[in-house]
Amino acid sequence: MVSSKSRPKKIYIGLLGYGTVGSNVYGLLENQADEIAQATGTSIEVKKILVRDATIPRTDAPVELFTDNFDDIIDDPQISMVVELIGGLEPAFDYITSALEQGKSVVTANKQLLAKQGFYLFRLAQEKKTQIRFEASVAGAIPVIKVLRESMVAADLTSVYGIVNGTTNFILTEMSRTNAKYQDALARAQEWGFAEADPTEDISGQDAAAKMAILASIAFHTPVSLDDVGCVGIEGISSLDIAYARELGLTIKLLGVARLYDDKINVRVYPALLEQDHPLATVSGAYNAVFLQGKSIDEIMLSGPGAGGMETASAVVGDIVSIISRKTPGPLEYLVAHRDLKFFSDEEVVSKFYLRLEVEDEPGVLASIARVFADQKVSVESVIQKGRGAHAELVMVFHPVKEKRFRAALEKITELNMVKSAPRPIRVEGSDEQ
Amino acid sequence: MVSSKSRPKKIYIGLLGYGTVGSNVYGLLENQADEIAQATGTSIEVKKILVRDATIPRTDAPVELFTDNFDDIIDDPQISMVVELIGGLEPAFDYITSALEQGKSVVTANKQLLAKQGFYLFRLAQEKKTQIRFEASVAGAIPVIKVLRESMVAADLTSVYGIVNGTTNFILTEMSRTNAKYQDALARAQEWGFAEADPTEDISGQDAAAKMAILASIAFHTPVSLDDVGCVGIEGISSLDIAYARELGLTIKLLGVARLYDDKINVRVYPALLEQDHPLATVSGAYNAVFLQGKSIDEIMLSGPGAGGMETASAVVGDIVSIISRKTPGPLEYLVAHRDLKFFSDEEVVSKFYLRLEVEDEPGVLASIARVFADQKVSVESVIQKGRGAHAELVMVFHPVKEKRFRAALEKITELNMVKSAPRPIRVEGSDEQ
Repeated sequence: MVSSKSRPKKIYIGLLGYGTVGSNVYGLLENQADEIAQATGTSIEVKKILVRDATIPRTDAPVELFTDNFDDIIDDPQISMVVELIGGLEPAFDYITSALEQGKSVVTANKQLLAKQGFYLFRLAQEKKTQIRFEASVAGAIPVIKVLRESMVAADLTSVYGIVNGTTNFILTEMSRTNAKYQDALARAQEWGFAEADPTEDISGQDAAAKMAILASIAFHTPVSLDDVGCVGIEGISSLDIAYARELGLTIKLLGVARLYDDKINVRVYPALLEQDHPLATVSGAYNAVFLQGKSIDEIMLSGPGAGGMETASAVVGDIVSIISRKTPGPLEYLVAHRDLKFFSDEEVVSKFYLRLEVEDEPGVLASIARVFADQKVSVESVIQKGRGAHAELVMVFHPVKEKRFRAALEKITELNMVKSAPRPIRVEGSDEQ
Repeated sequence: MVSSKSRPKKIYIGLLGYGTVGSNVYGLLENQADEIAQATGTSIEVKKILVRDATIPRTDAPVELFTDNFDDIIDDPQISMVVELIGGLEPAFDYITSALEQGKSVVTANKQLLAKQGFYLFRLAQEKKTQIRFEASVAGAIPVIKVLRESMVAADLTSVYGIVNGTTNFILTEMSRTNAKYQDALARAQEWGFAEADPTEDISGQDAAAKMAILASIAFHTPVSLDDVGCVGIEGISSLDIAYARELGLTIKLLGVARLYDDKINVRVYPALLEQDHPLATVSGAYNAVFLQGKSIDEIMLSGPGAGGMETASAVVGDIVSIISRKTPGPLEYLVAHRDLKFFSDEEVVSKFYLRLEVEDEPGVLASIARVFADQKVSVESVIQKGRGAHAELVMVFHPVKEKRFRAALEKITELNMVKSAPRPIRVEGSDEQ
């Protein structure tokens, strides 16, 4: 007879979705079963897997695990944890709320949903005294959520920023490396599996914005939803900008930035030019990197591959392990017991800017343009002027200036006849001041 | 009357030591009291602080907190957590074991002690169903221990390596940046507070070796003590090596490396040459960076400032928070339920090597030396030969080779009359193969 003491605890999981991530999670839970049981004193069994068609035979998991009916999971009292990997808003939102309502804990990788309904779900989990974890939603295998939630309690964070989208970083790296045009670099990213057939979500910056909403929420204990995140994508970046950037010793990256200005926060996603010795400048290809900075810590960086199937699965399993080894409600209370900070307006943020202008190639153009900026008290740091046939190109870098004032100057510039194209300013990072 | 439900839990801490880190921990616990209470549902009070002379008035903490008698802490049943920040082996070991014996939890930043007695203490904590945490012992504010213990359970780690000593990284960065001699760079590090008056512990690599023992123990669930870590310091690095390295496109760093070879581990600290696009090559000054690599994760890097007083204090407070929000015994069981892997011999490790030789400047020298290496089946990748007066300098880089075979060739080389100085090989990282 086996004594009850030696019998390890066991928990049953319902898995929603069995794509790349889902099947990798299943595989990891099987392969690492002993490690996990030793780490947590609990063994884990996947009891049901929700898929669209449960009749398709799958070689890597027994057919009887699969179901096309969510009720088989939600109504099973043995299943105490639901792992949602189907993505999208619906039915994921329904499934997760049903699970939390019943006190089941939830692990999800669904950034869109969290960026829209995160605080609702966090509150629900707290109310029901259960947990929701979502490490895989932000930066693949980099445990930035865990570090933010658990290691930075005393750090008094002032900024969280970095490269949180692998697709755009791959494209920008390719453009810099090979002088490729944007469209060609995108095609290459698609060919190599680093961009979706429809890449809108990534290249528009929306994917990064969702992740920044999640990171900012946790870093500043303030509900930040996708709609609160200003967002510029990389579609407007030309190979000319990249060539000029190189001439100026700068590298272009799509940054997500969440920053505290006194008692207000500003959360944005935008392409930015970085000095080539900036640690983010060397984060290349589909890699992600996040910086954390606080009053009691200098810059900490976490970097690693962006969300591949295996990395995401590893983060999901990490969350499962965290849930079974942590007291409820624990720090979730903290997450929701928010400070509810106000937002700091984009217009008030002080930055350096880079600007490329197509202008008529005739005497006095530079003088006229410089005059407009001077009138608006926008101060030029450096200028490159190059003839290109009938037109000339003027590339200017400005000293740090309030965005409001810079935009006002830009409006005046656009009105000048000698300016032949819509000016496209790019922020230069590393000299943010208030 | 206040209902017991609304009264927050409270725990009392005994602080051992009140130097830079100790006073910063006290300050953080005071300043972040609300954040911590919200994060954990528990408020924390420092009840006693052990110092050598308790009569010295201190402006930042009330004088009645201080005591010079450890009994005031260990015998106080209200104190359930001891934070040890005095360092060294004794009396720290006595204090920590006494605390654990009584079921008090322990936070420590004491790497020397952990690298020697870690497994004894881990076992004791487990036996007494209490916890010991030690994030601050390894890499300042970088939460690498937490990530290893809690996020990497399913990662199936194969290597943990990086720059874990800020002093030596500062010295090597200075040597590379300014062509300074080793002694001058060391003097500058001392002047700027990045090196102790007696820097032996750092420059000999012993500090890094202690940290690698701790990291390897946790990554591979195997007791690794300081004595198991092969260790070469930076005293032998000359500014000539740094100049040649630059000529070869390489940067020199003191690395700590813990690696799995099939089912055996090898843990070492040594100066290594890195390709200039290696992510560790740009980790400069007193910064630390640790890479984690596993079967189910690609390289994850954590980097940040090495242990300053504030960073270390922040890590200590993070540990305090982790202890009060985590179930016991939790993952400590896992840590101690070790795999007890065997060690893989240094001699069997395959690496690229760099070698600088002072030789007689006469015809046939290169041929003779190359012949010796060829006889030993050690294959040359590149050679630089430079005349320096009567002598010449021969700088060679070799294709990956088993250390045993390379050492054998070196012995033969040393016997040659034309070789004028003891050869000083440096490992070239990035092409480790078995």
